[in-house]
Amino acid sequence: MPEFEPMQNMLTELRRGSLTLAVLGSLREPRYGYALLQTLTEQGIDIEANTLYPLLRRLESQELLTSDWDTSENRPRKYYVVSQKGKEALVQLMKEWEHMQRSISAICGKGE
Amino acid sequence: MPEFEPMQNMLTELRRGSLTLAVLGSLREPRYGYALLQTLTEQGIDIEANTLYPLLRRLESQELLTSDWDTSENRPRKYYVVSQKGKEALVQLMKEWEHMQRSISAICGKGE
Repeated sequence: MPEFEPMQNMLTELRRGSLTLAVLGSLREPRYGYALLQTLTEQGIDIEANTLYPLLRRLESQELLTSDWDTSENRPRKYYVVSQKGKEALVQLMKEWEHMQRSISAICGKGE
Repeated sequence: MPEFEPMQNMLTELRRGSLTLAVLGSLREPRYGYALLQTLTEQGIDIEANTLYPLLRRLESQELLTSDWDTSENRPRKYYVVSQKGKEALVQLMKEWEHMQRSISAICGKGE
């Protein structure tokens, strides 16, 4: 249905930017991939594993996350948590997010 | 300064998605490009002309905006306004925006 594509793209674009924010925010406490996926879903963030895992790897390569294997259970799990640099990034992203929230509310808040 | 690039990219990504929302929201009343740029800037949306104008053309080609030349003044001006389709898109984007706002607040709102 090509006529709906632009709408889908716009929605995707709108979500994408906030995803990093949601992931960094959720990883202020250590979580392994699947648990993180569940946390995000519970909070209304609709993300698939094949989007989340590459994002985690990217954030780790950017040193915003660190990871650690927990091998104490039968099934080893890789836990991710924000680094100091990640915490600083989170503060900046939250600031920008709040700034945008005010702008969008001022522009779109009334009427419609 | 390559070490700041990821941060810059994340901020850009965060802004980009909300830009369409801000533009459609601002064009519920007709505005010409430069006036729109000023409105957005006043509302704290930092956008440059060479980002805004291509976006306006894209939104027009997607039939979310319509445009009309006002030739009554010395200097003809192209006024943009949201179409019916644009209004519907705006409603959907606002819904998504509010949804994300709730998610992000739930995730990042408390603590730091």
